[in-house]
Formats: sequence, C-alpha cells, structure tokens
Amino acid sequence: MQTLSPLFMQKAKQIKVFLTDVDGVMTDGTLSFFTDVQGQTHEIKHFESLDGMGLMYLAHCGICTGIISRGNSPTLEFWAKILGMDFLFYNTSVKSHALDYLQQHFNIQPQEIAFIGDDLIDLGVLARVGLPLAVANSVSEVKANALYTSPLYGGHSAVRDIAEKILQARGEWERIVQENAAGTFKAPQKQLHIVKGL
Amino acid sequence: MQTLSPLFMQKAKQIKVFLTDVDGVMTDGTLSFFTDVQGQTHEIKHFESLDGMGLMYLAHCGICTGIISRGNSPTLEFWAKILGMDFLFYNTSVKSHALDYLQQHFNIQPQEIAFIGDDLIDLGVLARVGLPLAVANSVSEVKANALYTSPLYGGHSAVRDIAEKILQARGEWERIVQENAAGTFKAPQKQLHIVKGL
Amino acid sequence: MQTLSPLFMQKAKQIKVFLTDVDGVMTDGTLSFFTDVQGQTHEIKHFESLDGMGLMYLAHCGICTGIISRGNSPTLEFWAKILGMDFLFYNTSVKSHALDYLQQHFNIQPQEIAFIGDDLIDLGVLARVGLPLAVANSVSEVKANALYTSPLYGGHSAVRDIAEKILQARGEWERIVQENAAGTFKAPQKQLHIVKGL
Amino acid sequence: MQTLSPLFMQKAKQIKVFLTDVDGVMTDGTLSFFTDVQGQTHEIKHFESLDGMGLMYLAHCGICTGIISRGNSPTLEFWAKILGMDFLFYNTSVKSHALDYLQQHFNIQPQEIAFIGDDLIDLGVLARVGLPLAVANSVSEVKANALYTSPLYGGHSAVRDIAEKILQARGEWERIVQENAAGTFKAPQKQLHIVKGL
Repeated sequence: MQTLSPLFMQKAKQIKVFLTDVDGVMTDGTLSFFTDVQGQTHEIKHFESLDGMGLMYLAHCGICTGIISRGNSPTLEFWAKILGMDFLFYNTSVKSHALDYLQQHFNIQPQEIAFIGDDLIDLGVLARVGLPLAVANSVSEVKANALYTSPLYGGHSAVRDIAEKILQARGEWERIVQENAAGTFKAPQKQLHIVKGL
Repeated sequence: MQTLSPLFMQKAKQIKVFLTDVDGVMTDGTLSFFTDVQGQTHEIKHFESLDGMGLMYLAHCGICTGIISRGNSPTLEFWAKILGMDFLFYNTSVKSHALDYLQQHFNIQPQEIAFIGDDLIDLGVLARVGLPLAVANSVSEVKANALYTSPLYGGHSAVRDIAEKILQARGEWERIVQENAAGTFKAPQKQLHIVKGL
Repeated sequence: MQTLSPLFMQKAKQIKVFLTDVDGVMTDGTLSFFTDVQGQTHEIKHFESLDGMGLMYLAHCGICTGIISRGNSPTLEFWAKILGMDFLFYNTSVKSHALDYLQQHFNIQPQEIAFIGDDLIDLGVLARVGLPLAVANSVSEVKANALYTSPLYGGHSAVRDIAEKILQARGEWERIVQENAAGTFKAPQKQLHIVKGL
Repeated sequence: MQTLSPLFMQKAKQIKVFLTDVDGVMTDGTLSFFTDVQGQTHEIKHFESLDGMGLMYLAHCGICTGIISRGNSPTLEFWAKILGMDFLFYNTSVKSHALDYLQQHFNIQPQEIAFIGDDLIDLGVLARVGLPLAVANSVSEVKANALYTSPLYGGHSAVRDIAEKILQARGEWERIVQENAAGTFKAPQKQLHIVKGL
C-alpha cells in the first residue's frame, strides 16, 4: 500500500463533503454524442463500476458526495441518484460558486471539502478546498495544486483509488471490506440536492 | 502455454457450473448511459467477441454457465440468451444468495461452481465456491481470494482466457479447436433460467 | 518499412478478392448493445477511419473486398456500402461456405482470396485461402495459420496496415499516396452482393 | 515544457485560422454506428473534453477555428457550435477546396492557416497551409509533412496539446490559466459558417 502523507491523512479525516468534476475524472474525458431522427443530439456518458462503488463507500461512511459540472446532462442526474449522492451542481460556469452555495445554505466550510479536478476550470475550487485532488490525466497546472494525485486515470478507477485512500486515512476501509464480504453492505439512500446555473 | 497449478487442474475438472460477475469481468467496467427524448435513461453494455465464444465453448462442453449481477439490464438477458447461458441472477443485492438458490433448486453444491469476481461485493461468493477466479483489474482483496487470476483484463478476453484454461484442464480444448476448424462447432441452445432480486 | 516475405509478396500479387472477419478485425472485438423503450436490443459497431480508407484503397485498385461474419447487423450493410465493398456474407454459421459460394457463383478460386481472421471459427477459411492473415489480437491458433500477422490490433488500424502491405507488394501504394495528395482519389462505387445464412 | 522550434514559434504567431480534420484528430478514429427500429443508421462521435477546451481557448484568443471533414454528421455541427467555431466544411471530397473558399470569401491566405491532419486525404491541405500539424497516430506520409507532430493521440488530448503550444508561442497561455483560475474565462460566442460538398 502506497504511504499517505501526514497532511493528506489529516485533511482526509476533516472532510465532510467529497465533490468531483465529471469529464476527465468520473470519465476518461470522452464526450460521445449522436443525433436522433428528430435531429436532437444526445450525449452518452461513460462512467465506471469501481468508481461508482467507491462513491457509495464514501456515502455509506457518512461523507456527503456531489458533483460540480460545467455541462448539463439528465444522465448525470440519473447516475448521481444511483450513487446516493447529496449534491449535483450543473451548468456551473464558475465552479467556485458551488463552494459559496454550500457555505451559505448548508454551513459547510471549504476547508471541510475534498474536490477532484482535471482542467484549468477547476483551479478556482482547488485553491479554496481543504483537500484538493487530481488524477493521472489532470493537466499540469491542476496537479501542481493538488495535495494528492491518483496514479490512476479518470474513468479508470481514479475516483475509486481516492475514495479508498480517504477511507483508509479515516480507518474505515476495513469495515467496508468486511461488510461487503459478509453481504451486509447497503447502498446509500439519499435525497439529491440539484443546483443549476451558478 | 502458462503452466496451470495442480489445484486449479483438480478444481477445474470438478466444476459443473461456471458463473461470472458482469461489470469489470465480462466488460472493462465502463457503464455507458444516455437519456432519450422521453427522459428515459438507457445503459449501453460493452461485451467482447472472444469472451462470448469462450462462454459458448464452456456450454458446448456441458458446463452450465451463468451471470450474477447487482445491476439490471434487459441487454444482459439478450446477451445471456445469445451465449446459450443457463442462469441469470440480476438485481442481486447479496450475491452469495445465488449459491443458496442453486443448492436448493438445482442441488448444485458451491464446490461444483467456478465464479469470477472483480470487486468487494464478490467476496462472499468467492469465499464459498470451489473455483474462485479473478481478472487483471480485480481489486487486491478479490485477487487474494482467487485460485487463478487471469493476466488479461475484463472486457479484453479475461473470460476467454479463463474458459480456455478450464477446458485445457479438462482435456477438451483440442476438440473445440478441431470442431471450429472443421466447421462442425454448434452454438449451444439452452433455456435461460432468470432469477431477480435475491 | 517492414520487409515483406517473398511468399507474401507473391500471394499479394495474385489475389483478386480481399475478405475479412468483422469482430476483432475491423473492430477491437467490443460488442456494444442497448435496449430501447420498446424492449428491442440494438448493437453499436465500432469501426475505424484508417481501416475504412485502407479498404477503399484496395477497392480503388481493382481488388474486390468483402466481409464474412457470423453475426447479423444492418449496420454492417451500411458500412460495407460506404466502403464500396462487393460482398457481404452474414449470419454465416460455417464461414468456409462463403468460399464455395464465390467459387460456384463468381468462379473465384480460394487461392485468389486473402482473408483476415482472429478466432477459431476463422480456421476453416484460413486453411483454404491463398493469403491467410491475422492481427495482433488473433488467438494463437489463428496466428499459426497466417502468412502475415499485423503488429497492429483489430479496430486500431490492423486492416489498414494489411491493405497498405498488399498494395506495396503490388506496387500500387505510391499511386494511392499521389492521388490523395493531388485530390484526385475517388471513393469506389460498387454494387454490394449480400448473402445470408450460409 | 517541451522546447518549441523557432519556425513553429514564428508560424504560430502568424496564423489567423486554426482548422482541423475530425476522425483521428478530434477523435481516436473510431466510427461508431447503430441502426434504429426504422432501419436508419446513426453515427456516434467520440470527442474529448480537454480538446474541446483547447479549441475554446484558441477562439477566446481571437483565432478563428474550424473543421474540414470528408464525412457528414449533424453531431459535428452540434459540437462545432458548442466550441464556438467559425467554420464547418463537411462532405468535403477535396479538402484543399476549403482553402480556396476561405481565400475567395474571407480573404484568408493559406499561409495564415494552421491545419491538423492524420491521413493521406489531408496531404493536399497540409502542403499549402502555413502551419501544417500532425498527431501521434497520423500516418507516416502526413507526419513527414508536418511542422509539429503532437506526441499525444487523436481523441486523447492531441488537439489540446497543439492549442496550448500555439498559445504559448503567442504568449497568451498564462492569461488563459489566470482567467480560468479567477473564474473570469468566458466560452466564445460565434456564428458558425457552414459549407457543404466542396
């Protein structure tokens, strides 16, 4: 097991909310589209099974989870609900506005938040949160601002790797393994809070 | 050809049923979704040709084949029928319940079953079956419980590799090759037994 | 440039028809499916741009091109027409029957045919054609029967590599490059001959 | 940071228009199709998030952007509009005709144009533009005609890499990073000029 830095350990114990970008983090960055007979274009989003379970493990351990996305996709809402997420910010032109929103409406401080980003648009959020994170395919400017960069790629278990590292730091990973082995692990049931167009 | 362990050889000869997880084993773990004009979200499942033939070879040699999945997908049923499978367990919240079901309704003992898993949710089944198997992308906890881990990845011929290894152990691989070369190999015709929500 | 064997050079000059398997050769072997609101399952086929152009180059140089597939897909017919192919054999349970058909109806001898295969089901055709070919992901039994195995993978320019090698052997590659550079290359227009269920 | 050649630096400063091929450059070359219940075949195009942002950065810095494609896809028009592109040439049988069109209708000289190509059909344009470019998966004939070949693959951030290199050469990259970090970066709004069938 990779040794985790003392600062990562400390921050991972303090977070209450785990947020992530979508394209390039929960996916490999591929944006697939097709146009139907009526001329309407639909997006296909490519998520990953291990990542999804990792997000459920976080939720199961009492960490609120959520997404901040520039894009807009009914499919994203579908997936966030399956994962038992708490927050979905979409059509977000300035991503750090989501941090203001959480502070004002839920009294959640940026220092209590983890966030994974991959591109320049994520820099504003990464600069403010307590646990800024990156993935193997994040651009260099993002990696330079992350406390931990997963060696794995977006859409290829990077989110799962980060979720596991956080739960190990909090001493909750073994319980997750045991509950799964025993068949007693339950997928989280949450009410998804949706915010559009910040 | 990779040398097979004596224990794998022995277990492979004893199995009557070959079961597998879907996401991450029969696929690379990618979960693709799109939402149609009516707002309904559909999943696209990405299987593999060589894997499919491998499962048909097992069925052709008299081994019952089947799937245990947490998910639910009409596409899974479509594919299981094409492959000539015997069992499809879906919406399975506790996967080891499928073993109980097979024992009670078909008098199949866990020791007569092979199972491939990739994630923590598969640990309960892997602990009970005679031939527990993993793939290159299985999580470390799963690999630690497998008698054989394919060097190939899910969705990239891992199932085919395992099917071939089992048929080699049983001395049936050469016959499969000969029948294919001669054009006499027939795809198996089976009645698919579907069990939901265990 | 890779040196081509004298036997490959000789056979490449003699062929009149270039046939190929689909899954694992014109694609990477992925079989993607989704099920619509009416419960009907559709396949998505993943071809490749460079491969498509390679097949057009062959057709442009007077070589008949075609597909022998176990599967059935209206999408295959769509793609074969775009590529200016001559033959489409689908729902083919015994692939070598396509060779008999070409001999009987078009007086094309197996020795005048090239064929690319990847799996055991292709062995019967590979044993009879003049120029048997494989790709990087072909199973070992297929590679053992091929006169040339592309170092590239199916769906990742293996067909293009083979088309280029054949046209180099026939001394027609430079003309293709020049016509493209000059903007005078024309996509082939052909009548597609479809045969189902051999 | 990779050192850029003096010639690349000079040409990058002079370009007014940035054009690109689609398949194999803005995508990895995969052409995905499915056929609906009515028998109509639809293409799925797979773009990439980092590439899309790179094209927006170019547009934001006053460089006109556009596509020259042999193919035809309503999805391409959808994506070009999202990226704030200026030009979309599709159903283009002779790609260099797009250069003539830009010269005649917009007084844009070939020497003021950058173009990324991957296949033989792109040679005619690459021979005439001021800044000819290639990607890691471009065929050897194309790479031989490029002033810069991205080490990255089409559909895997090759366009982003090239966009970043051009903006670095023009001294505008740091401003893009700062605007993103400050949340003041605005996606470009443009009128898309569409030309079919040149």
